[in-house]
Amino acid sequence: MNADYGAPTELAGPLQQRRALYQPRLPPCLQGATVRVEYGDATATIDPTGAHAVAQAFPRTYGQRLVTFLTPDGAAGAGKAVDERPPIRVGVVFSGRQSPGGHNVVWGLHDALKAYNPQSILYGFIGGTEGLFANKTLEITDDVLASYKNQGGFDLLGRSIDQIRSSKQVSAAMTTCQDLNLDGLVIVGGVTSNSDAAQLAETLVQKNCKTKVVGVPVSLNGDLKNQFVETTVGFDTVCKVNSQLISNVCLDAISAGKYYYFVRLMGRKASHVALECALQSHPNMLIMGEEVALSKLTLMEVINKICDGVQARAELGKHHGVLLIPEGLIESIPEMYALIQEISNLHNNNVPVTEIPTQLSPWAAALFQFLPPFIRRELLLHQESDNSAQLSQIDTEQLLAHLVEAEMIKRTKEGRYKGKKFSSVCHFFGYQARGSLPSNFDCDYAYVLGHISLHMIAAGLTGYMATVANLKDPVHKWRCAAAPLTAMMSVRRHLRGPGAIPIGKPAIHPSPIDLKGKAYE
Amino acid sequence: MNADYGAPTELAGPLQQRRALYQPRLPPCLQGATVRVEYGDATATIDPTGAHAVAQAFPRTYGQRLVTFLTPDGAAGAGKAVDERPPIRVGVVFSGRQSPGGHNVVWGLHDALKAYNPQSILYGFIGGTEGLFANKTLEITDDVLASYKNQGGFDLLGRSIDQIRSSKQVSAAMTTCQDLNLDGLVIVGGVTSNSDAAQLAETLVQKNCKTKVVGVPVSLNGDLKNQFVETTVGFDTVCKVNSQLISNVCLDAISAGKYYYFVRLMGRKASHVALECALQSHPNMLIMGEEVALSKLTLMEVINKICDGVQARAELGKHHGVLLIPEGLIESIPEMYALIQEISNLHNNNVPVTEIPTQLSPWAAALFQFLPPFIRRELLLHQESDNSAQLSQIDTEQLLAHLVEAEMIKRTKEGRYKGKKFSSVCHFFGYQARGSLPSNFDCDYAYVLGHISLHMIAAGLTGYMATVANLKDPVHKWRCAAAPLTAMMSVRRHLRGPGAIPIGKPAIHPSPIDLKGKAYE
Repeated sequence: MNADYGAPTELAGPLQQRRALYQPRLPPCLQGATVRVEYGDATATIDPTGAHAVAQAFPRTYGQRLVTFLTPDGAAGAGKAVDERPPIRVGVVFSGRQSPGGHNVVWGLHDALKAYNPQSILYGFIGGTEGLFANKTLEITDDVLASYKNQGGFDLLGRSIDQIRSSKQVSAAMTTCQDLNLDGLVIVGGVTSNSDAAQLAETLVQKNCKTKVVGVPVSLNGDLKNQFVETTVGFDTVCKVNSQLISNVCLDAISAGKYYYFVRLMGRKASHVALECALQSHPNMLIMGEEVALSKLTLMEVINKICDGVQARAELGKHHGVLLIPEGLIESIPEMYALIQEISNLHNNNVPVTEIPTQLSPWAAALFQFLPPFIRRELLLHQESDNSAQLSQIDTEQLLAHLVEAEMIKRTKEGRYKGKKFSSVCHFFGYQARGSLPSNFDCDYAYVLGHISLHMIAAGLTGYMATVANLKDPVHKWRCAAAPLTAMMSVRRHLRGPGAIPIGKPAIHPSPIDLKGKAYE
Repeated sequence: MNADYGAPTELAGPLQQRRALYQPRLPPCLQGATVRVEYGDATATIDPTGAHAVAQAFPRTYGQRLVTFLTPDGAAGAGKAVDERPPIRVGVVFSGRQSPGGHNVVWGLHDALKAYNPQSILYGFIGGTEGLFANKTLEITDDVLASYKNQGGFDLLGRSIDQIRSSKQVSAAMTTCQDLNLDGLVIVGGVTSNSDAAQLAETLVQKNCKTKVVGVPVSLNGDLKNQFVETTVGFDTVCKVNSQLISNVCLDAISAGKYYYFVRLMGRKASHVALECALQSHPNMLIMGEEVALSKLTLMEVINKICDGVQARAELGKHHGVLLIPEGLIESIPEMYALIQEISNLHNNNVPVTEIPTQLSPWAAALFQFLPPFIRRELLLHQESDNSAQLSQIDTEQLLAHLVEAEMIKRTKEGRYKGKKFSSVCHFFGYQARGSLPSNFDCDYAYVLGHISLHMIAAGLTGYMATVANLKDPVHKWRCAAAPLTAMMSVRRHLRGPGAIPIGKPAIHPSPIDLKGKAYE
């Protein structure tokens, strides 16, 4: 195991070595030496009521036009020959949780950059955003890339605090861009990172810094979804790997016939990963945060729902089953959400952790005391880069298993349940999936996005996200484009999760599952 | 998900369907319609000092000869033509934890049985040993097998208490054998199940019951190993799947650079799975139960060993890592083992769980109180079919992570540690691996063992285990044989783990890793 980021490493095993041989595919428009850049309509925002606020917050980067990248039509559109183009200097940073395919964004960016002009230089920032602030770079070369092609993880560069938000952080980033004389900065991440990217782009324009800021949608959560973005890099792989593990657990459940498996799935607030995995692996029950939130189910209502299911199966002689639980579920339960929010606010007011329980509102304190100790401790844990509770550290599956067991014992004593004793086994599937080898789809998608990023910078676009449409079609039909980050923003008038972004501040928000949408049907 | 054992099911997905197409290979001696049975030397036991005790305990089945199965040499050795052979009636039962490949034992047994005489009948006992006692059977046919070929899990038949030990259980098993007029009973499992198989075989001979009892070595633990048995079905798959998951976690650890992952591996008392996984996935540290036991390390010595490693890595600027922990480690720590043994004895004396803590010896009580509540609760849990603590239910990885964190905080306060705050993430890899699709090796090995079982019964062998030698060679070089179960027995004079088998009673014991052996080097 090697912790020196970017140091050429031996690939772990034959599987990894074989994976490295895969050559990602490119759509026709990216196969030539040049692309044709076509400008479309000016954009507003996906949130009309928020348009004014967004326009005010982003005076220089709001309302930019959509851009699509096309195959040049004949010599006319061919643009400058390679040797006439100036070399280009680009930096790339990993921000946000590692997702399978992230390395291929860097690979694609590097290949496009060298094709654009072999003299061009690509810097990777070591240790994520902290490396960006401190100007710690690694020059990306073929040698460096050799052992990271089509590999999982973010270990080529690593990641850290995943924030470019405070004015201190923003100006540190700007200084680095100036010191390296960068033409472009590519920020790889999800909703939070891309909101930060938009803010940085706006600031750099205002300060006449030439560096163009480009966002790339990479996130295992699948919650960065809108009219411009069909899915994020990593989601496909993570769902496939988790589904395989869940299928194994289902087999195990049937074989022993005596356990209920509570499987919590990484994926943040929205239930995209859990829903997709349920579709692929057919567990017995999926508890979707969006449903719970919609019907405002209390914690005990959720518990009773599960217990009724256990009881119904027992009457069929089945004393086993598999439940899927999105890691964000806990925030979707109204009173739990309110509790987490109170804790979060106390955190933000720098109340010491030990003091927090004493400063909760009476009813929140009551709920807090009702919860088992291990959950209390976890709720007080430090928080994510977006200031939301650190969901991956809250053992929601153990909380539910604990309460379901208590309820089943109660029902047994009351004679309402006559089946065998309820026993559970808890799992959290996340880390083992997000580190896995990327699927062909994610390898291709990430590699293509890397190429698009270069062309965006070459075209002088800033405050844009690299996007691909028609992803359900074969690669040769993919449509490559760039969409203004501001066009994906909305303004929250009420908090939806412990304030990822303060009320009223425009941002790209996680999109929950649309319970009326196709995917859900 | 389908809980009706043996009901033909749709295969879960394309992967499963594709896997079902694999045709396991057979060595030459099993490819014809007949085999040549060759008898070798009479056997003693692998434990000379225990030979007398074993001989006394198994008067009718001790000292039987080794048997090998060879390709018939010409018409002479061809034996009876198929149509002269009487149909044969066989039952098969899953005993012990499900391991990838178990289904192929049934498949191989079925194919050999029908090739022997198409009128032959194979019964599977539904719900494991409980099904055997209650004579709940499913006739195994091509249709039934269709959706279980090369599939993981034991869901074709299921499993239950995994014991044929008490005289009540033994006589229930015998009654079933007589009611079904079975020529043979095939018991699929690990050390415990095969010890029980030997006992049942001896009893049936003594009671003049014609049913031959045959054991098949299937166990993910890899601890059923001796001069006759090279490895068990499932071990290969479980190690490969776990190693892939561990590699993913390693990548994740390097990427984020902020967590220590404590990964506990299913595999019972011995560390075979953990050692093999360490060889395949290169974690930062492996804590082998056998080493801890050999050097008699106390719990705090183990903790300090880990903390020293964490500290040394911090001085290199590394604040992440991956540790592998065998689930049996907890029993290898002398004082923990003694505590578990006291609890186990109180269990066996039917002391109610709530009373146990009050009846511990003073020092055991002190240790018990020192442990975090979640571990205390788990130590009091009910026990395995072999009366040992239910290791899979004890969160050893969380115990270690908990104590390591406390120690690192202590070292920080004392100024001995100056690195970043220690944080951990805990995993238990077991269920998701043991339910997975079997590797080609396990598919072949299990299918071959199924064939051998039939030929053993046809040859009238009882109290034997089906074995294959030269497993490291290609299948065509495999040597098929049968070894007397009594020859694998030894007599424990002091308890090695909370009394799987009472002191002095001959049994097949789990073989620990030989710290001087090749595998370990």
